[in-house]
Amino acid sequence: MRPGVRLRPIGAVRSSYRDPSDLPPPVFAPPRFFERSTGTIEVLPEFAAGLDGLEGFSHIIVIFHFHRAAGSKLEVVPPGESKPRGVFATRSPHRPNALGLSVLKLLGRDGRILRVSGLDLIDGTPVLDIKPYTSRDRKAHIRTGWLQKERRPAR
Amino acid sequence: MRPGVRLRPIGAVRSSYRDPSDLPPPVFAPPRFFERSTGTIEVLPEFAAGLDGLEGFSHIIVIFHFHRAAGSKLEVVPPGESKPRGVFATRSPHRPNALGLSVLKLLGRDGRILRVSGLDLIDGTPVLDIKPYTSRDRKAHIRTGWLQKERRPAR
Repeated sequence: MRPGVRLRPIGAVRSSYRDPSDLPPPVFAPPRFFERSTGTIEVLPEFAAGLDGLEGFSHIIVIFHFHRAAGSKLEVVPPGESKPRGVFATRSPHRPNALGLSVLKLLGRDGRILRVSGLDLIDGTPVLDIKPYTSRDRKAHIRTGWLQKERRPAR
Repeated sequence: MRPGVRLRPIGAVRSSYRDPSDLPPPVFAPPRFFERSTGTIEVLPEFAAGLDGLEGFSHIIVIFHFHRAAGSKLEVVPPGESKPRGVFATRSPHRPNALGLSVLKLLGRDGRILRVSGLDLIDGTPVLDIKPYTSRDRKAHIRTGWLQKERRPAR
């Protein structure tokens, strides 16, 4: 196994959320809360050509760095919960490697600027990768474990 | 912007696919091709406690390193296509940061071993993160751009 992988940002999020405290934990947000939340992803000029053709997709997967997360834990107590869960059973930022993932709606593209909604990220979040959301990412029937049982049904 | 992010594997894929040439490019595979494809994700002992609670989820998101990809390009010609596309409009391994993402069905968990299906990864692939697939990752109505128009409708 290779000892490690070094990544560099390909862009950054521009958002009206300035601080993690500005937004509810995404999986606990009221239904549709983030649908109205818009912003942009600014891709660095040297990567702009990599966006060609992305505008035809309705949704994108953004992999980002939880740059404000201070350290990782193996067990976390999700907001509003009392029982600790393994960090890989949560979307907590306090995870090994501090990688985050959001599926965003792509409203449009202006050169190297992507206009998105569904944004649950804070301003300045470093973006590591952008992928088109395809039919293979969409699962019809899902179970969502502790999230489903104790909070709300999958919607 | 921070200069970079250093990641280390949290585990590895065990798969009957030994080499990239053993599998069709996932987005071009016949429908349901990968549904029958099973294997395991072996999480390193020091991260095993992070899996607690994951067994209640039907699907997981695996972020991995395309460790066999030799270099990145900004434009790629997808398999079976003639026109180049921006790499961020494809799921090509030849991308800046070489991060890959698969949504896998979680068949079961035996300690630090996850049994999965839908596996489209080669043996030894370094796993960087595992997340539960939640309702916010599931989009009902999607457009899939050049993939949809020129190949097959979203299924």
